[in-house]
Amino acid sequence: MKIGMIGLGRMGGNIARRLMRAGHEVVAFDRSADAVEALTRDGADAATSLEDMRVKLATPAIWWVMLPAGEATESTVFQIAEDAAEGEIIIDGGNSFWKDDVRRAIALREKGVAYVDVGTSGGVWGLERGYCMMIGGDDAVVRHLDPIFDTLAPGTGDIVRTPGRVAERADPRAEKGYIHAGPTGAGHFVKMVHNGIEYGLMQAYAEGFDILAKRASEHLVPEERFDINLTDVAEVWRRGSVISSWLLDLTAIALAEDEKLGRFSGHVADSGEGQWTIDAAMEEAVPVHVLSSALFARYRSRVDHTFGDKLLSAMRFGFGGHTEIPQ
Amino acid sequence: MKIGMIGLGRMGGNIARRLMRAGHEVVAFDRSADAVEALTRDGADAATSLEDMRVKLATPAIWWVMLPAGEATESTVFQIAEDAAEGEIIIDGGNSFWKDDVRRAIALREKGVAYVDVGTSGGVWGLERGYCMMIGGDDAVVRHLDPIFDTLAPGTGDIVRTPGRVAERADPRAEKGYIHAGPTGAGHFVKMVHNGIEYGLMQAYAEGFDILAKRASEHLVPEERFDINLTDVAEVWRRGSVISSWLLDLTAIALAEDEKLGRFSGHVADSGEGQWTIDAAMEEAVPVHVLSSALFARYRSRVDHTFGDKLLSAMRFGFGGHTEIPQ
Amino acid sequence: MKIGMIGLGRMGGNIARRLMRAGHEVVAFDRSADAVEALTRDGADAATSLEDMRVKLATPAIWWVMLPAGEATESTVFQIAEDAAEGEIIIDGGNSFWKDDVRRAIALREKGVAYVDVGTSGGVWGLERGYCMMIGGDDAVVRHLDPIFDTLAPGTGDIVRTPGRVAERADPRAEKGYIHAGPTGAGHFVKMVHNGIEYGLMQAYAEGFDILAKRASEHLVPEERFDINLTDVAEVWRRGSVISSWLLDLTAIALAEDEKLGRFSGHVADSGEGQWTIDAAMEEAVPVHVLSSALFARYRSRVDHTFGDKLLSAMRFGFGGHTEIPQ
Amino acid sequence: MKIGMIGLGRMGGNIARRLMRAGHEVVAFDRSADAVEALTRDGADAATSLEDMRVKLATPAIWWVMLPAGEATESTVFQIAEDAAEGEIIIDGGNSFWKDDVRRAIALREKGVAYVDVGTSGGVWGLERGYCMMIGGDDAVVRHLDPIFDTLAPGTGDIVRTPGRVAERADPRAEKGYIHAGPTGAGHFVKMVHNGIEYGLMQAYAEGFDILAKRASEHLVPEERFDINLTDVAEVWRRGSVISSWLLDLTAIALAEDEKLGRFSGHVADSGEGQWTIDAAMEEAVPVHVLSSALFARYRSRVDHTFGDKLLSAMRFGFGGHTEIPQ
Repeated sequence: MKIGMIGLGRMGGNIARRLMRAGHEVVAFDRSADAVEALTRDGADAATSLEDMRVKLATPAIWWVMLPAGEATESTVFQIAEDAAEGEIIIDGGNSFWKDDVRRAIALREKGVAYVDVGTSGGVWGLERGYCMMIGGDDAVVRHLDPIFDTLAPGTGDIVRTPGRVAERADPRAEKGYIHAGPTGAGHFVKMVHNGIEYGLMQAYAEGFDILAKRASEHLVPEERFDINLTDVAEVWRRGSVISSWLLDLTAIALAEDEKLGRFSGHVADSGEGQWTIDAAMEEAVPVHVLSSALFARYRSRVDHTFGDKLLSAMRFGFGGHTEIPQ
Repeated sequence: MKIGMIGLGRMGGNIARRLMRAGHEVVAFDRSADAVEALTRDGADAATSLEDMRVKLATPAIWWVMLPAGEATESTVFQIAEDAAEGEIIIDGGNSFWKDDVRRAIALREKGVAYVDVGTSGGVWGLERGYCMMIGGDDAVVRHLDPIFDTLAPGTGDIVRTPGRVAERADPRAEKGYIHAGPTGAGHFVKMVHNGIEYGLMQAYAEGFDILAKRASEHLVPEERFDINLTDVAEVWRRGSVISSWLLDLTAIALAEDEKLGRFSGHVADSGEGQWTIDAAMEEAVPVHVLSSALFARYRSRVDHTFGDKLLSAMRFGFGGHTEIPQ
Repeated sequence: MKIGMIGLGRMGGNIARRLMRAGHEVVAFDRSADAVEALTRDGADAATSLEDMRVKLATPAIWWVMLPAGEATESTVFQIAEDAAEGEIIIDGGNSFWKDDVRRAIALREKGVAYVDVGTSGGVWGLERGYCMMIGGDDAVVRHLDPIFDTLAPGTGDIVRTPGRVAERADPRAEKGYIHAGPTGAGHFVKMVHNGIEYGLMQAYAEGFDILAKRASEHLVPEERFDINLTDVAEVWRRGSVISSWLLDLTAIALAEDEKLGRFSGHVADSGEGQWTIDAAMEEAVPVHVLSSALFARYRSRVDHTFGDKLLSAMRFGFGGHTEIPQ
Repeated sequence: MKIGMIGLGRMGGNIARRLMRAGHEVVAFDRSADAVEALTRDGADAATSLEDMRVKLATPAIWWVMLPAGEATESTVFQIAEDAAEGEIIIDGGNSFWKDDVRRAIALREKGVAYVDVGTSGGVWGLERGYCMMIGGDDAVVRHLDPIFDTLAPGTGDIVRTPGRVAERADPRAEKGYIHAGPTGAGHFVKMVHNGIEYGLMQAYAEGFDILAKRASEHLVPEERFDINLTDVAEVWRRGSVISSWLLDLTAIALAEDEKLGRFSGHVADSGEGQWTIDAAMEEAVPVHVLSSALFARYRSRVDHTFGDKLLSAMRFGFGGHTEIPQ
């Protein structure tokens, strides 16, 4: 198929490359002429603007918007939609808030333009491993785009089949690495929850390794103090333990490089998806102690002290005359 | 009554003073001769050692140990017990771990020495306001000490009586500000839970004021940004709101002095009781998300970054090529 | 002053009564004719509709809307605004979401109609004790309404003044029990955080009493098992302890009536404010482990089991062959 | 090597089988004669008692105790030690508390008996996949037992090597699936943290799937409601997503069998290791919001309502006249 790729960052560029390697045609656009140039060398047709891209695409055009969520994606989607002919398809492959998808799809439907949201996991490894995709949109449109998704997905590969998975009842696309999760918004919703879980998993490992690391502390009595080799622990847990995972593989790689992780400041960013996951849970009255704690740990990592910490000290001084002395 | 007070710090000294003001006799001992001297000026009989104190106490002697929990209390209790005659009473008024009480009481019982644990709340305000006490020990012994506890407690004062409290069913001592909570250990157990709750209450206020304080952040859009006067908020909540409390009174005092709380570093200490409360909850399989979170917030306040934070960044770099930039 | 009160439920009716007792005039309207009739007996002027109310109010009219947040308040505010003359004032005294206030105020400003949001704490006790109020709106409008707020507030009463509170620097209204928190929305924002804190405080007490209650469990070894009188514990903590508060007073009342709390099912509702507090915190990147945990505990209280619980068992069966047996 | 296996349950029996398949000799004992008989059919030499086992073992004897943690393990270890000759080795392969290991090792050292703690992960899959082992003890003793551990471990297999792992710096045993974690206790310590992490990971998935499951709730407005196929979601996340893991594989299997997980009651047990992990963290002042929340969720799953829930309702009734109505 022929597809217009807007946004050639780490994700967009590699998605385009994986498509072209499989024989799809890509018309490419980015604010950065260098990024366009680089992709042209890999076989893409360069576009100098969205108007130029439309000329170069087939009719009706298929657009893949791969831009930062929020203003950039919003304005681009509506700019494309403004001149769009009936039957065109706009795919938002970024990390948009799923309610934005719902709103946009309704707005575009009036013009006969289809909107498809694709939550994409796989990061920098996707070009080689393939992308895990969660897709929302009208059934017919998603089916029409199947050649695209089939190319981008990892395929069944050598991952062991899930015992008990019955072909008739189960969507075969899931085993290839993509699903049609539901109507518009459902793709990004599932991807959002994926990221919410990701935060929780990461924080579980982080807390566990923290306990191991601080076991060497001199505050502990000698017979309860251990100087544990974290690199070897990460490695051994990859091998037959209940907590083996890809995130643990990444942990093992990072520790093997530097067990002190000295290049990292300890400030941890969060994209919006952790927050949206908590919002979704609250809408449903689902208790999410772990997912929220994981998000809050990141907030906390980015400040030296909270005002609340100081207030605790102020109260302690008030009732007990305690004066806090930094350790 | 006549009582030997060992440990004349902020708590011990004022407890002795409150006792003497009501006509009780106090023999006083402390490692610091200055502390003994100061209390002597307020009417105490000075002791130069535990042996000296025994000579100066009535028979059988009543000892009030008011020392830091752990080694100091432990060694003093057993040193007293070594030479104790049958019928002597050792009161531990500090913040001992309740299982230490249970163990000590069993050991002392063989010698005919009674052990009473008194959890004491009231801090630096106790001299004037009286001490709220939670007492563990044998019924007869606690009854024998009633004149002491009755003096130290705040008394009914002008605190409104709890409607529906029926005299026959309810222990009148509770309304005066002390209870016999149960057998040895029960006093410190109830006091421990008191402190666990205290941590939770404090953290609830801390988080709430944090939200108010950060509402002035420039990251927010102007119409959703408020520059809220925290001092006035604390004051107004003292007056008819559902969340009025003594801790809020203390918050109002601290903010009235300096709304920025600039004298506090943000490092918040914890005594053992928060931790023991979580231990007790886990023994009972009681979920304590709030009490534990309050404790962990204090741990977190005392380090710049955790190793876990760095591990999060390392994983993020691993799957997404993200590099964390301190803000 | 003369004020139109719309919504004569538990809160609205008593607010009207407290106003009338102080000499203010109230025109009253409610869907329920009985409620209007009851208030008329206490001195109110009955209105049969909003149109009728406008006729009976002074010019420009002052409206106090005291209805459930959401659709009821929204439609009433805009219905009043539709026919409003310049200079009229609409007060929303309910529990509206503060961003709804911001939006409404902007919409009404175009018509010259002022909008004031009043967050009110005090519950069923407000008629006698007065209401603690947090107010958002234009400064001149809030000043104009001062006689109303001054009447509704508790006044300084016999609550001890905060030491260090300097009259010149501090708003005297706070000591009377109301504050002008900021522009429109700020009133409900501060009230929302108040409720968020309230959830946290309540959960801290709940967890603490849970630990005390379960200490009598037969699973524990006899010397570590205590049968603690919770009624007396609540009572004693009211007297000189660090954790005394109004919520603790209410706890003492409830336990004095029935230590088993047998009339309560254990299902705990939440109004929107706990959720909105978490939202506000996430907008500001403030970690709120305690406030969120308190909210989630209520969610959890309302279901027998979560799907997540079953998934845990399914995983346990998967790796360990464990079969969960209900206890 | 020749080894005495005491305890032939799910774990002990299969460990013995894996050893025998590789040519090691096993003398087997269990309270259940049937269990002994079954293992004899697979090649073990039956022992009728510990005394009988000693006779049948080589000198000095090597004992592998695979019993429930606590009393069973404790009494067996000391019973063996009582008659042990110098140089004998007792391995505790169960889930003992690591401080019990420290204590036992000290006691046994006086008799010249070595104690080795082996934390074992792998569950019912270990016979075929091999066991991931974390070992504590004296270096020479652990080296002596290497043939045993080498057999039980999974071996390098086809798991991708960790890039950057440098042979000289890194213990080659980790890549085979076992580590010598440190002195006595360190093995069970690392295994304990492993289980703590496991609880956190499981709860993260549980909460995420809960959010997906409840998205079909009728309380939500239609355009924000999704009926998501959880089975396909679990499957697709196994393929190229950041959160792929063995626990997710197990989730996919369970959902493929029954997406409702109807055979599970929702009561979730916990072994002691989650609790001990929190204890260890508190000893080190490490904040562990996620690991503790995961544990508390299990506690909560096993009761219908907490006393604390009722207390919340009692307070709500107290200040607001709210009466909770079960939903």
